[in-house]
Amino acid sequence: MSETMVLVINTGSSSIKMALVDMPSETLLAEGVAQRLGESGAELTWKISGETSHCDLGGAEHDAAMQQMLNALFCRIDKEGVAAVGHRVVHGGERFIKPTLLDGSVITEIESLSHLAPLHNPANLLGIRALMSRLPDLPHIAVFDTAFHHAMPLHASLYAVPYKWYSEYGVRRYGFHGTSHHYVGQQAAVVLGREFDNCNLITVHLGNGCSATAIAGGISIDTTMGMTPLEGLVMGTRSGNVDPGLHEFIARQSGESLAAITQTLNRESGLLGLSGRSNDMRTLLDAAEAGDERASLAVDIFCYRLAKSIAGLAVALGHIDAIAFTGGIGEHAAVIRARTVAQLAILGGALDAERNRQHGKLSQCFISNSEAALPVLVIATNEEKMIARYVCEVLNQEEKIT
Amino acid sequence: MSETMVLVINTGSSSIKMALVDMPSETLLAEGVAQRLGESGAELTWKISGETSHCDLGGAEHDAAMQQMLNALFCRIDKEGVAAVGHRVVHGGERFIKPTLLDGSVITEIESLSHLAPLHNPANLLGIRALMSRLPDLPHIAVFDTAFHHAMPLHASLYAVPYKWYSEYGVRRYGFHGTSHHYVGQQAAVVLGREFDNCNLITVHLGNGCSATAIAGGISIDTTMGMTPLEGLVMGTRSGNVDPGLHEFIARQSGESLAAITQTLNRESGLLGLSGRSNDMRTLLDAAEAGDERASLAVDIFCYRLAKSIAGLAVALGHIDAIAFTGGIGEHAAVIRARTVAQLAILGGALDAERNRQHGKLSQCFISNSEAALPVLVIATNEEKMIARYVCEVLNQEEKIT
Repeated sequence: MSETMVLVINTGSSSIKMALVDMPSETLLAEGVAQRLGESGAELTWKISGETSHCDLGGAEHDAAMQQMLNALFCRIDKEGVAAVGHRVVHGGERFIKPTLLDGSVITEIESLSHLAPLHNPANLLGIRALMSRLPDLPHIAVFDTAFHHAMPLHASLYAVPYKWYSEYGVRRYGFHGTSHHYVGQQAAVVLGREFDNCNLITVHLGNGCSATAIAGGISIDTTMGMTPLEGLVMGTRSGNVDPGLHEFIARQSGESLAAITQTLNRESGLLGLSGRSNDMRTLLDAAEAGDERASLAVDIFCYRLAKSIAGLAVALGHIDAIAFTGGIGEHAAVIRARTVAQLAILGGALDAERNRQHGKLSQCFISNSEAALPVLVIATNEEKMIARYVCEVLNQEEKIT
Repeated sequence: MSETMVLVINTGSSSIKMALVDMPSETLLAEGVAQRLGESGAELTWKISGETSHCDLGGAEHDAAMQQMLNALFCRIDKEGVAAVGHRVVHGGERFIKPTLLDGSVITEIESLSHLAPLHNPANLLGIRALMSRLPDLPHIAVFDTAFHHAMPLHASLYAVPYKWYSEYGVRRYGFHGTSHHYVGQQAAVVLGREFDNCNLITVHLGNGCSATAIAGGISIDTTMGMTPLEGLVMGTRSGNVDPGLHEFIARQSGESLAAITQTLNRESGLLGLSGRSNDMRTLLDAAEAGDERASLAVDIFCYRLAKSIAGLAVALGHIDAIAFTGGIGEHAAVIRARTVAQLAILGGALDAERNRQHGKLSQCFISNSEAALPVLVIATNEEKMIARYVCEVLNQEEKIT
């Protein structure tokens, strides 16, 4: 593929994020975000060629905001240079196991998966429809958050529940953050000087959502998130694992509905629920430093649960070539990495304090000490780049076919 | 304490189990079980001094069945030799952290914990009341399944949910099977020739219910069961961990109530749900051998999830002196132990096939191979003996006080 640009879009329930990536150089040319859509504070920010612009969207909904975003982008960038659009889609179910060229029937199939991600897929589809109608001559490609995990073996993906819940309703572990885990895994292999397909890696994505993935032979063989992004690690506002008897207990004690309880587990739990203060790790680390016991406890639980989950994923791998931290917390919170890896002595984990403090920037991503049996890395994730890569792969395949 | 007998009782919702233990020799003199109480098939079996007797209970409920059990026991054994009664109680909440002499106020407090174990504590109390009224001159001592776990640190016992769920409703990990984990841990220390208080152990209780516990310094520092006995490992009919978003998903898909879903997770999940065939491990191993794919999958998931959980608990310990298997499956299913430990190479696990086939009986409980870094043991649990020990401890303390 010759020099060209890929427009990457991620549409959420109240936001649209866009990025323009030059390929194959993978240079980020522009990034924009429209937030608080449908509210009076709706606003748009674009950073194009290093210059930031800002405008009020006057309460615009998705469709109007999309038009304004495109206007702002294409008055600066030549539309003709854009070769394709890559759309992030959260849930591909068992149907979509790789990036897929969008057409009417693919859209219908994505729609039919909405019950698996009722908060996410409908928003993703809004973005797809709006952009396809505005840029009808470009190929549009859907990139699924679940796809990287599609080859997980059944013993890792099935829950011990009635089998018909799987066969009839699709209840299984799907896993999320696949684009990030895939990108970080590939980068980790580069850092190690190894073939990605021959590495055993644990990638640890710690952002608002948190998940860890065991990668072997270039594929995800287990991951902490499950049928939904609520399972697994402690997150900003999400509980991660709880006792499956908790829901009924709370319903009996408080009289709340199951929907309200599930909402609480998604929105008012995790670091926020434990600390009663914030879902932001920086705030909690500062508060803990200042003596706030519940903030300190929230951080302890976050790290302990993470270390336990990493050890669990190590079982799937047998041998680990490296652990790679990524995401806002994973890339920037040295103390979280230190506390987590300190609990992984059983796997040979031992950090170099100075390398860790520098986030691996002065040590080729390595933060483990040079004698440690287990290499530990910090890798900046870049889902936009990865989506652009996926898009180019699909374009190249399409070219070969036609 | 001089030679004496302790009567141990475990009252369930439709069964009563009794055992008479000679102390301090810990000889099991008699064991009886009354089953299917309240049903037409209600029946009583006693095995006293090696002789088995059997009788129809004619649909008796707990109270009448209890009287018949005592009659059958005390026509063979001299009642005067019984020094005390030990009652198994499932949930002691945060209040009961050790075996406790029962009186009116203790019973009231146990009652007040019934919301934490609505299926178990009320049945336990039935047994306590019935036996206290029939043997009013003996000390009655409650032994709590949760007590051994009471000192778990907060980072292991709290869920990442709103903190007020803990402070107002008591939502936390309590852990169960405590009597078995404590007994097996002590026996493992004996086998290792070490002080129990100086050992780092993982005890793995695999019966109808399954749980694994990390023991350090003589106390449980983490365990797989949680607020209820539904959390953690795959069990006969219990799911163990699921995605916390599963309940609402199933409610939306099937229209079932939360109570029905929780019931399904307790009664129709686990090995039974996955295999669609049986909750009995022997049946599933035979079926898997004969080519039943879902039975085989159920066994795979059981072992994989167990290995992951053991690795997670290893994080809490840092260093492991031994893993000890116990319970019906743990003591008798060599293939389950083999498949689980084969996945624990990261911890230095490696079994000796012949030792494992003999369940460690010819090798002083050891089933690991002699070069393995990680000792693995098979230890027969004996909750009746352990309850009798607890009872004697309380009696001795009471004697000292008075």
